[in-house]
Amino acid sequence: MSAAATPSFPHIVVVGAGFAGLNFCQKFPTDRARITVIDRQNHHLFQPLLYQVATAGLSAVDIAQPVRAILNNQANLEVLMAEVTAIDLAAKKVRHTAGELSYDYLVLGLGGVTSYFGHDEWAQFAPGLKSLDDALKIRRTILLAFERAETEADETRRQELMTIVVIGGGPTGVELAGAFAELTRTVLNQDFDRIDPTKARVLLIEGGPRVLGAFPPDLSASGQRQLERLGVEVRTGVHVTAIRQGELDAGGETIRAANIIWGAGIAAHPLTRTLGVELDQAGRVKILPDLSVPGYPDVFALGDMTVLTDAKGRVVPGLCPAAMQMGGHAAQVIGGEIAGGNHSPAQRAAYAYIDKGSMATIGRSSAVAVVGRLHFSGYPAWLAWLGIHLIFLIGFRNKISVLMQWTYSYLTYKRGARVITGMSGEKSAGSA
Amino acid sequence: MSAAATPSFPHIVVVGAGFAGLNFCQKFPTDRARITVIDRQNHHLFQPLLYQVATAGLSAVDIAQPVRAILNNQANLEVLMAEVTAIDLAAKKVRHTAGELSYDYLVLGLGGVTSYFGHDEWAQFAPGLKSLDDALKIRRTILLAFERAETEADETRRQELMTIVVIGGGPTGVELAGAFAELTRTVLNQDFDRIDPTKARVLLIEGGPRVLGAFPPDLSASGQRQLERLGVEVRTGVHVTAIRQGELDAGGETIRAANIIWGAGIAAHPLTRTLGVELDQAGRVKILPDLSVPGYPDVFALGDMTVLTDAKGRVVPGLCPAAMQMGGHAAQVIGGEIAGGNHSPAQRAAYAYIDKGSMATIGRSSAVAVVGRLHFSGYPAWLAWLGIHLIFLIGFRNKISVLMQWTYSYLTYKRGARVITGMSGEKSAGSA
Repeated sequence: MSAAATPSFPHIVVVGAGFAGLNFCQKFPTDRARITVIDRQNHHLFQPLLYQVATAGLSAVDIAQPVRAILNNQANLEVLMAEVTAIDLAAKKVRHTAGELSYDYLVLGLGGVTSYFGHDEWAQFAPGLKSLDDALKIRRTILLAFERAETEADETRRQELMTIVVIGGGPTGVELAGAFAELTRTVLNQDFDRIDPTKARVLLIEGGPRVLGAFPPDLSASGQRQLERLGVEVRTGVHVTAIRQGELDAGGETIRAANIIWGAGIAAHPLTRTLGVELDQAGRVKILPDLSVPGYPDVFALGDMTVLTDAKGRVVPGLCPAAMQMGGHAAQVIGGEIAGGNHSPAQRAAYAYIDKGSMATIGRSSAVAVVGRLHFSGYPAWLAWLGIHLIFLIGFRNKISVLMQWTYSYLTYKRGARVITGMSGEKSAGSA
Repeated sequence: MSAAATPSFPHIVVVGAGFAGLNFCQKFPTDRARITVIDRQNHHLFQPLLYQVATAGLSAVDIAQPVRAILNNQANLEVLMAEVTAIDLAAKKVRHTAGELSYDYLVLGLGGVTSYFGHDEWAQFAPGLKSLDDALKIRRTILLAFERAETEADETRRQELMTIVVIGGGPTGVELAGAFAELTRTVLNQDFDRIDPTKARVLLIEGGPRVLGAFPPDLSASGQRQLERLGVEVRTGVHVTAIRQGELDAGGETIRAANIIWGAGIAAHPLTRTLGVELDQAGRVKILPDLSVPGYPDVFALGDMTVLTDAKGRVVPGLCPAAMQMGGHAAQVIGGEIAGGNHSPAQRAAYAYIDKGSMATIGRSSAVAVVGRLHFSGYPAWLAWLGIHLIFLIGFRNKISVLMQWTYSYLTYKRGARVITGMSGEKSAGSA
């Protein structure tokens, strides 16, 4: 970062240092504008590995990198840690907890939040997984539940403490359920005397007819088989109708479980509702093919907070690669426009999603992947998953650290991060 | 750990899985008794490196290892995660949050807590450093203060946000002050645009005439020089008379600082006050030379919670090596007694502290060490410090991870762990 910014440069404000915002900054020609990146966290989070923090495989700092460190050497760029409180598209201003910014171009990468489909009261009983603090809370809850099971005399209560229910059979839910099955069967089983963690019950509940619904049916079937081999009970076509402290109603049955995790719904960041532009039901901004917000050619919205049918007629999926590509596309459009004088927005290039494939990991040597017409599952898919996540994990140190811990866990069936922190911050010592 | 314990074995309850308790378990002959270790945390904490977590050098899980994992393979031993609420020496019972234990022998390694010398109200303004949560809180506070300084328009307020005061010139205070000076001058200085973190003020306040008062005077002087070379303002012979939100009174002056850390006092765990035995002013149990508690030959107290003049007439220092040695000594005494029938306590061997030297690190290539009559400072002392801490850090994975991160930091002047977590748990966004 350079301290002195040329004042005559246009000013671009980037809200959110997720995959979209960060990739925009990294792809933008640094000599054409000054950029201010604003995020309420001081770190970029590598969300695809968040489930590994929740399941004690990685430590929090392994998958987080300070935004300032990532954008350290970029000229004409400033990082601001503050929370955006209001965006005024007409006045071209962004208000935040430490002041206000005016912009020439605005790039929004607000991301998503956990959605309980109108049942916000479920949040306290079934935490979602969107932030490091969420992941650390889930890790603490599960590890504490097993500690309590060890001293619990009542057989029924002990089984409840050793029951983990994951709601939602998408990639997040599948990855969590698989990792919990592995944690209990190959890691915790070495630790306890009185309880047998291999008897822990891990349930995955999905409302649709199959898990991994965005994947081809044969991979859904393979994914379910791999989960069941790890010991996960998979229930598809089952809807959750109520969640209370330590129990939930699903498919007409009441299931008691000390550990309930919500992996079912994602909505756009609530700030989208204040923009006064057209949204879909999940609060996502309906953007134009050039990725700008309708009516505001100088405002771009990217990644999970948007919904778009791209130049080739495909709905762009809410995945990291799409967010990164959108960041790159917006950088090209804005950079070109500043360099070449103002174009008309109608002349801008339309974004087309490049599908390099998608994958979900289930556990040790277990995964599914689709690349074009090729479907992989099991060991080859898992190796591919490993390599791709290491390549995209930002920061040299993190890559080495993660690689080392994965090697260690693979060889020893242990997990280093099963440390309980933050207990003093918990309101109650109850089983939630 | 084995699930079936022979019931005719005597039962030893070990309270606290610190250096003393853990070393007792590891040295005790496993075929002579069954052991129950109870700790309110699920992890053993490598306290000598806690300051590195507070200063963003290491991640929390690097210096913590689950107690169950450490004692995994030991026969006739059970680990219990619960908080001890009462100890009844007459009835030979330990009550805890999950029930009650009877013992034949009791081994207490309760450790210490931060002491504010009767000013407990200072705790909220100047946190101490005893647990992982303390360290994560200090890290969060400091990193947030610099983020706020970056957006602060008022020059005076900005300087306050960039002021760090460490109270107490013992090893902990010296290590913290040195690490903060390095953090600001060689790490954070690469991250910010508007503020210059090399202008951050780091103050070390010590009431006594010199820092590192337990070391020989020449090493105190060397330590102070090394601190000052890093940019720390050292004030000796200055007493803190009051601490309020964001400021303190010391030596007749009021110093405003957003970051105040208390490294001055340690007292024994408050449970010692409920035992009904003789204590010193800091609440430490005055134990007998065999390490048993006067009047209770079957109760041993070890480590920081005790005060003892040993067989050679020296006061045993409150250091890790002493705690580990005491654990080993108690294991030998109890193990021998069980094997050979009951001895009289008077016939037990007296403990003698083996002084292998002591050291304090100040920063990169800076440390002081004393080994017998040899005094080291600077680079040789630092290398020795590095090697010894790696040898004693428990757990293979942690050693590799710590070594890797130190190498990385040494070569790149970066620190990987400067990630702010736990903000949602903070009551206020104020500068404390």
